Amino acid sequence: MPAPVTEFELIATLKSHLPLTAAVVHGAGDDCAVLAPPAPGHELLFKTDAIVEGIHFLPETDPQKIGHKALARCLSDIAAMGGTATAAVITLALPAAPEGERIEGIYRGIRKLAERHGVAVVGGETTTNPGRLLINVALLGTVRTGRAVLRRGARAGDAIFVSGELGGSIHGHHLDFEPRLAEGRWLAETGCVHAMIDVSDGVAGDLPHLLQAGETPLGAELLKSAIPIRRAAREAARASDTAKPSVVAALTDGEDFELLFTVAPRDAVPVLDGWKAKFPGVPLTCIGKVVDRPGLWLRGEDGLRPMIGKGYEHFR
Amino acid sequence: MPAPVTEFELIATLKSHLPLTAAVVHGAGDDCAVLAPPAPGHELLFKTDAIVEGIHFLPETDPQKIGHKALARCLSDIAAMGGTATAAVITLALPAAPEGERIEGIYRGIRKLAERHGVAVVGGETTTNPGRLLINVALLGTVRTGRAVLRRGARAGDAIFVSGELGGSIHGHHLDFEPRLAEGRWLAETGCVHAMIDVSDGVAGDLPHLLQAGETPLGAELLKSAIPIRRAAREAARASDTAKPSVVAALTDGEDFELLFTVAPRDAVPVLDGWKAKFPGVPLTCIGKVVDRPGLWLRGEDGLRPMIGKGYEHFR
Repeated sequence: MPAPVTEFELIATLKSHLPLTAAVVHGAGDDCAVLAPPAPGHELLFKTDAIVEGIHFLPETDPQKIGHKALARCLSDIAAMGGTATAAVITLALPAAPEGERIEGIYRGIRKLAERHGVAVVGGETTTNPGRLLINVALLGTVRTGRAVLRRGARAGDAIFVSGELGGSIHGHHLDFEPRLAEGRWLAETGCVHAMIDVSDGVAGDLPHLLQAGETPLGAELLKSAIPIRRAAREAARASDTAKPSVVAALTDGEDFELLFTVAPRDAVPVLDGWKAKFPGVPLTCIGKVVDRPGLWLRGEDGLRPMIGKGYEHFR
Repeated sequence: MPAPVTEFELIATLKSHLPLTAAVVHGAGDDCAVLAPPAPGHELLFKTDAIVEGIHFLPETDPQKIGHKALARCLSDIAAMGGTATAAVITLALPAAPEGERIEGIYRGIRKLAERHGVAVVGGETTTNPGRLLINVALLGTVRTGRAVLRRGARAGDAIFVSGELGGSIHGHHLDFEPRLAEGRWLAETGCVHAMIDVSDGVAGDLPHLLQAGETPLGAELLKSAIPIRRAAREAARASDTAKPSVVAALTDGEDFELLFTVAPRDAVPVLDGWKAKFPGVPLTCIGKVVDRPGLWLRGEDGLRPMIGKGYEHFR
């Protein structure tokens, strides 16, 4: 009979099979990982993020998807800067219950996504979090010096674009979305993007971060008919009289992890054409424009209405 | 009456007062932090670590000490590589209960320690962890290329040194220890250190990491009378008949966060003399030597006895 494998032995085994890259001088297993510096002319990107059982995933969620989501959320932030992800360190805070199979699944999910994007996993710490699993991922990346795309930089008149589709992420997308790393990098390389963020709290929640990041607060007018609505959001709206209208879901549901950015009006068509040529499988939609007047406004059949506060209630 | 401040507003305020350094291009507040690359001729160090309420600290622990400990543990790992810490990102996973005052205290503890060691805090994420506070710190550092001191490299005959004193950390040291960054850097610069680790699981727990890191497992003979025992460990041993003998506490208690390293016998005296001149306030003790025979052995009045397994029971 083989000796029972403790979770910590299991993790030691998993750590010896983590994805590595040429940038890794010493991976997991020492007090710190040692990494080569970024190539000349590059800066570092640094991000941390945690997901928690019962909030970001459920006890019954496929462990591989849990691992995928934990890493993908951080990758999405690197994407929103126009960067390349290079190395991750993982903290697993384990409930007291036996977790062997789940841990293996989580690492499988992390590993597959990391390999697909050329990310090394260079540390895997474990601790105890009685009652619920928590996974923290810290991620390093690189970006050409001075080329990181920030949240600030939007200007009145800019066209507002969003990648992919929005809303209804809870029905599956939040567990298997593919972070838009190649797309974010391409956008940064165009030099056209004024401001960018990844949509984690809905366009209605995150667009204000772009509009309020500069010295003068700006607003946005969105075109209701242009909002790209995910099929799951349409279906959920149809399935119940009490559900949010699908366009509201698209604008206010969380965890889309799409890229939201602005470009000067003259760059809108070239960026759209370039994107379609480069990423034919990924929708890119112009959903509106940046305006001088602060606030979020939605233009529909009934004219222009404020999206939040009292207006938001009307709109619902 | 001022509007009530939510925890998330509070954290936004705290984030705007995080310590920065010249290496920070863009700190907290965007999708990722942007950092200057390390100086030419340097590699990166990367580490993550979490502390959890009820395990690493108690509900009643001084919040400033919680923050201190969260960062200090990671800094100790950078110290054990001979590196310089540069930038940290913090994840606070907050219980549902109101935590405003505690969060301020935690950030105060982090900030004071970060400032003392020239570490920028470039991200502060928050999430929810119902029932207990969890803090994850991810830390970046730098080290001269090829000069990181690893766990592997110990050789039979090496002298074994430990900084500071050991044991009884639970009586206070674990919450206010000062990570040995300057000491670790100085040791790395001597070029004499074969292998180094920071002692987090007791010398008896961590010394094997140095002895088993190479291709041939090694052992160690420690001199019982040489073990530097912390006063708190002596007092705890005296206070109760059922407590561990103080030397056992010194070797097996956790969370010393001292540097444990080996040097060639011919370098032992020069390293000790150099250390005393450079760090007169910090003890450095030669506690034994690396031997060919695997295992941990303790030399006392009654001769040489194995420290673990059956022998360990005898020894107790």
